[in-house]
Amino acid sequence: MRIIELNKRQETILQIVKDNGPITGEQIAERLSLTRATLRPDLAILTMAGYLDARPRVGYFFTGKTGSQLLTERIKKLTVKAYQSIPVVVNESASVYDAICTMFLEDVGTLFVVNSESYLVGVLSRKDLLRASMGKQDTESIPVSIIMTRMPNITTCKLDDYVVDIANQLINKQIDGLPIVKEVNVGGETKYEVVGRITKTNITKAFVQIALDEFY
Amino acid sequence: MRIIELNKRQETILQIVKDNGPITGEQIAERLSLTRATLRPDLAILTMAGYLDARPRVGYFFTGKTGSQLLTERIKKLTVKAYQSIPVVVNESASVYDAICTMFLEDVGTLFVVNSESYLVGVLSRKDLLRASMGKQDTESIPVSIIMTRMPNITTCKLDDYVVDIANQLINKQIDGLPIVKEVNVGGETKYEVVGRITKTNITKAFVQIALDEFY
Repeated sequence: MRIIELNKRQETILQIVKDNGPITGEQIAERLSLTRATLRPDLAILTMAGYLDARPRVGYFFTGKTGSQLLTERIKKLTVKAYQSIPVVVNESASVYDAICTMFLEDVGTLFVVNSESYLVGVLSRKDLLRASMGKQDTESIPVSIIMTRMPNITTCKLDDYVVDIANQLINKQIDGLPIVKEVNVGGETKYEVVGRITKTNITKAFVQIALDEFY
Repeated sequence: MRIIELNKRQETILQIVKDNGPITGEQIAERLSLTRATLRPDLAILTMAGYLDARPRVGYFFTGKTGSQLLTERIKKLTVKAYQSIPVVVNESASVYDAICTMFLEDVGTLFVVNSESYLVGVLSRKDLLRASMGKQDTESIPVSIIMTRMPNITTCKLDDYVVDIANQLINKQIDGLPIVKEVNVGGETKYEVVGRITKTNITKAFVQIALDEFY
């Protein structure tokens, strides 16, 4: 959705509703000497954009929100779904060496570790892998399950979480990315399917889109 | 700077200028039966926020910008200066092992490499260090100068660059952070002093501030 720029008639309608609301579509049309049908698209835009609200049998009223408030509100309501990336996973039996190779091949900063049933059991950051490869041990013989952050210490999120909340968590917990999960109930136990990935790169992209007025 | 929410009088002034501009402060005051002195703070706010512009001997006129346009304009004009972090540097003679230790101690994702005169000569990412430590070589005996990205292949930025441009570069060049530099002319040669660091973490923080209406 692009930022809506109001045209002259929409500005006039907004002013009429500000001064006289609640007011019916009929009454607005009368004041402008136009038909209700002509006004319908304008009223729809003003309502969709959040400037006006309508109540049945009462009419339109001004929400009291300025353009910049509506914009920040829209930014606050951006969800993970629209900004996610594809998750990259490794099996818990993979070696640290394999994980590093996967990280380079897929060019990601965070890997998710799954068990044989494909449920999330751990997270690997570049930092984790760097720490492991720094030691004198052979990275080919260490399984990732030994060095990963494991459940329940993993921060996860869901597709309909707000981007701003996730951004806040990435900063406060000093992590680069989160797995997006779907909870599954398996015999009374909650398991997590990894369905996506959201990282500081995604947030940086969202920032650019907002600054360039090109966000959803 | 917080997002400005206009009060009733400011909204009225805005409407008067929209309908009658260019118009002098005197004339606006007259229409509102107020003194010019009373209006001064309101006019200052409306001008500062970008709604109005003033030309000497002509008066105030409406810039034609909506609140959301002004907000995105302000986002576009955020500079690196307000969002930077402190840079962490290592000397070019330091070993890869030392660099990894510094990265963990300082908890940063990007290190800048300087020569004995403290000028920028290279950049080290977590990825560079991970690649180096993956091999069978001894990281204590490899100097960082062998594995670093070196000038002139380093992307740098300046304190007064726009955050949105830097965010775009981080995405397009797939890097986590940039050194903020000051150019120095040394005997006809351009050298770079490292004065700061800007990363995807800083952009993520900027995103949160915008969404929460708390940005500069």
